Parts: sequence; structure tokens; C-alpha cells
Amino acid sequence: MSLLVTGSIAIDTVKTPFGVSEDCLGGSAVYFSMAASLFSPVRVLGVIGSDCPFDLAEVFAGRDVDLTGLEVRRGSKTFRWAGTYHEDINERTTDKLELNVLAEEPPTVPDSYKDSEFVFLANTAPALQLQLLEQIDKPSFVAADTMDCWIGGHLDDLKRLLKKIDALVINEDEVRMLAAENNLIAAAERILDMGLSIVVVKKGESGSAVCKAGGERFILPAYPTAGVKDPTGAGDSFAGGLMGYLAKVGKTDFASLKQAIAYGTVAASFTIADFSLQGLTAIKRDDIESRFETLRKLTSF
Amino acid sequence: MSLLVTGSIAIDTVKTPFGVSEDCLGGSAVYFSMAASLFSPVRVLGVIGSDCPFDLAEVFAGRDVDLTGLEVRRGSKTFRWAGTYHEDINERTTDKLELNVLAEEPPTVPDSYKDSEFVFLANTAPALQLQLLEQIDKPSFVAADTMDCWIGGHLDDLKRLLKKIDALVINEDEVRMLAAENNLIAAAERILDMGLSIVVVKKGESGSAVCKAGGERFILPAYPTAGVKDPTGAGDSFAGGLMGYLAKVGKTDFASLKQAIAYGTVAASFTIADFSLQGLTAIKRDDIESRFETLRKLTSF
Repeated sequence: MSLLVTGSIAIDTVKTPFGVSEDCLGGSAVYFSMAASLFSPVRVLGVIGSDCPFDLAEVFAGRDVDLTGLEVRRGSKTFRWAGTYHEDINERTTDKLELNVLAEEPPTVPDSYKDSEFVFLANTAPALQLQLLEQIDKPSFVAADTMDCWIGGHLDDLKRLLKKIDALVINEDEVRMLAAENNLIAAAERILDMGLSIVVVKKGESGSAVCKAGGERFILPAYPTAGVKDPTGAGDSFAGGLMGYLAKVGKTDFASLKQAIAYGTVAASFTIADFSLQGLTAIKRDDIESRFETLRKLTSF
Repeated sequence: MSLLVTGSIAIDTVKTPFGVSEDCLGGSAVYFSMAASLFSPVRVLGVIGSDCPFDLAEVFAGRDVDLTGLEVRRGSKTFRWAGTYHEDINERTTDKLELNVLAEEPPTVPDSYKDSEFVFLANTAPALQLQLLEQIDKPSFVAADTMDCWIGGHLDDLKRLLKKIDALVINEDEVRMLAAENNLIAAAERILDMGLSIVVVKKGESGSAVCKAGGERFILPAYPTAGVKDPTGAGDSFAGGLMGYLAKVGKTDFASLKQAIAYGTVAASFTIADFSLQGLTAIKRDDIESRFETLRKLTSF
């Protein structure tokens, strides 16, 4: 089934204990699409400035990624992010953030995208997420990401969004913040009461948890990797694998969702093994399947 | 098969956001034995002072817990610990620590314990752990716990201990500290090189991981509980369930070890649901089995 992602396309500069990657391609929509396209065709909706040094058609060459919704905005500048990961690689500092085009008007959804059935709204202002979602005719499954600044400063918009989507895919700290509850399970349950049916909690190195309205639960550790080089994009790759798999099978029952979470976990494990998109671009679908089976073996008893 | 635990018997005062439990029974050997005795007979080796208000024979009444090795030392005082768990219940502060008998001579292993096949050395000075272990004839499987102060201050003793035991069951921060390596998987592998065959990493709310020499790996999330009241004793209950199950089946192959980890996880989930030992004493073996099956369902995909 068709899958649309809307999110950022970024020029990233990333420092980790294992090296520096300067002015490399990043952004939620990019990581998401690279991971999702291992499973399913993807439609990208995003904006870059005319300064963007990357040819996205070339970046996604050979993958079923539709760039009809990629707008190159003349006179505008591409979103830039610079960050440093510390010795404890779970800790990161933002060194620089230039919103540039992201602070301007959002892109318009092309007509050819309006029938999208699966939609992922990567992190941005919830009012914009709503505005984008309203342009899609009748999506069958919508998931969104958000972050602390929207929970803190735009809670009403966010709560309106939650009533319009099926699933929220967010970090554990954000789950606690949004629910105003420290216990993660209790917090996820409280978020379900805000009007959506699925909460996917991303716990970084500790994996993920899923709570579905009605009581179904699933918990999965992260794929263990001894060589984490650059965690940038892990969450978006996770979401990409997850949504890509769901779009591929065209189902969102709990058994499919659990498998989708496992595929997302595996996609993220490749992302963090190298800088920028190199970990994801180096692999084929077979690598995903092989690691999926290993993950099953690692977690079954 | 026979199972021996040596560890502390404590008078605890615990504050959590959910209440206060003053002068209650605690200690690693107590939590361990309460959990392990759900699976297997347990032999307890420990010392209390003559001030101890608890009748351990009564505490363990109806359970197959051998107290031959419990020494009540006249004129000595029982170990006391007071601690506060914070709003983030994973964070705790020690308010008071009175080693008392734990700073004196360790107990002597009774003759009737010397043929113990499974042995758990709860956290104490590694030199004492070695001294106790030397008194056991020919154990078939020995596991030990340790903590940051021994890694920091008694590393040579600890390294001698690691060459004599089969498994180390420690917290993730201690794994990183002992290995001087931040990546948890790489750190566990480095510890295996110190001469033992199994490292069990306790990650609290994030579950546990097992690395075995030769490359076998297992990762299991914690059992999700919305009502954590008092995390005291979680790690010792985990070790108790783990060792109790291994002693019950009399095997330590990797399939049995994975099941043992799951049983330890379940035992710990009952401990943290109430203050002191109340969570564990309230249940029967059936409750363990039921939650074991739920955990399997929660984690399989």
C-alpha cells in the first residue's frame, strides 16, 4: 500500500567519539525513506533550499522513492543541524540548529500523494502536522512523532493531533512528559486515553515498547551492536522500517505491528553502525531478514 | 540440586514516592532465598546480630529454606540500610549504612552445606566471596554479584574471583566500569575474557542481557509493571529466581539459562510491586508460571 512521509531533509554535522561527519545528508524524512524503501515504495514530502548540495534523486537511485513532493525552494536555505554525541553515546548535545526552510511555509501535498494510505508525520510543530494531514484524502493508518518542545509549548495543538492519528512513535522521556507520569507503562496508557490507539515508545539502547488500546502489549530490546558509531537517525530509521513493513503487508493488526517493530529495530541497528546514511545504504533486504531472524533468536526463550 | 546462597540479612528502612517501610526485613540473602525457594530448596549462609527482631524460621515457614548456616552472633548488631527512591524510581540515595556484623568475620560454612552444587555469592568484598567459596567442596555452578566499590577498590581480588566462578550477575553501570568500556555488549564481552563463562547484565527497568563465552546471547525486557512501589531487592530476587530455576532443572545449558533469566525477571516483578518482601510472600508458584507465560507472549513476534 502507498506510504507517505513528511519530515525534514537536513545538512548535518555530527561528532561522536568515533569521528566527525561534516555537512552530510540527514533529516527525518531521509532516514525514514531510506529504511522504509527496503520494504515498500515511499512518497517523500519535504522542502530544501537552493543551497542543498545533495541530489536526492541520486541518493535514492535504485530505490522506489517518489520525490514528486520534494520542493527545492529558491532563495531559501536548507535545514541544518550540528550535534555532538558524548562518551556515553546515549547523551547528545545540539551544537547548532538553523531551521531555515523549516521555519517557512510547509510544502504542499501533490495531488498524486493525496490517496496515500499509510502516512508518517515526522517531528515538527503539531499544527503543521495537522495541516499536512488534512490534505490527505482518507489515510488508513497515520503515525506521528513529536518532541519535548511541542509537548511543553504546543500541547493543545498536539492533543488535537492525537485525536486524528492512529499511532504516536516517541521517546520514553517524551512519553513521561506528555503523560505527566513517571512509570512508563502507566504513562503510555494515559496517552492512549488521549484518543489514539497505539503508542510506540522508543527507548534507544533499551529497545522499544508498544501499548495498544484494549490492553495488548509488546516489548522488544534493541538489536545488540558492539559498534555504535553514530546514533543520528536511529529513531527515524526505526519508524521507517516499522511503517515500511506495515505498508508492505497492508495490515495493522497486532501480530503485524509486532513484526513491524522488529523490522524497525533491525533497520535502526544498521543506521547506527556507521555515519550518516552509510549504514543503511550499505545493506540489502537480505541483511534485514537475516538480522530479523537473529533478533528473534536473541529474544526467544 | 542443592543451592546455597551467602549474602546479607538486613534491617531496611525504605522511602519511596509511594510510602515508607521502616525497620523491615531485607538483605540480599533474604530476597534471594524467598525467590529461589519458589523453585528449589535453598541453603542460607549469613549472620545477624542478637538485636535482630525477625524470626527467620517464621519468615520462611512453609518454604524449603535451610537455616543451618544462619548465625545469630551475640553482642553483634544486624546490618542496617536506609535508602530513598526518588520520583524517578530508578534513582536512589543511601541515607544510612551500618555494616555491623558484615564488617566482622564472615560465617563458617556448615558441614551439611559443603556439598552444595549451585552457589550464589551475593555482593560483598570479593576476598570474602573467595574465602566462602573455598569452603565448598566441588560446586558445579557458581554465580556472584559485586558492586562499584569492589570494582574501584578491590579489583585484584575481584579478578581472582572471576577466574573461580561461572557467572557474574551485575548491574549495567558496573559492567561498564569493570570493563572500562561504554558499549554494553563490548563491555560484557571484555568481562568474559576475564575468565568466566557467563555475564548477566541487570538493567533494571530495561531488563537484562546475557552474554556467554562462545558467542551465545540473550536479551529480555523487564516485566512491565505499572505499579512499582519499592525496587529494593529486585536484583537479588532476579538472581534468586534465576539460580532457583537452574538448581531445580539441574542444568546450565543456554536454553535453560534463558528460561532461568525469564523466571528471575518474573520473580523481580513481584518483589517491586510492594514494600519489603510482601510482593514475593504474597505469591505462589502458579503466579510465577502465569506471568512467565505472559512475558513470553509480550516478547515474542
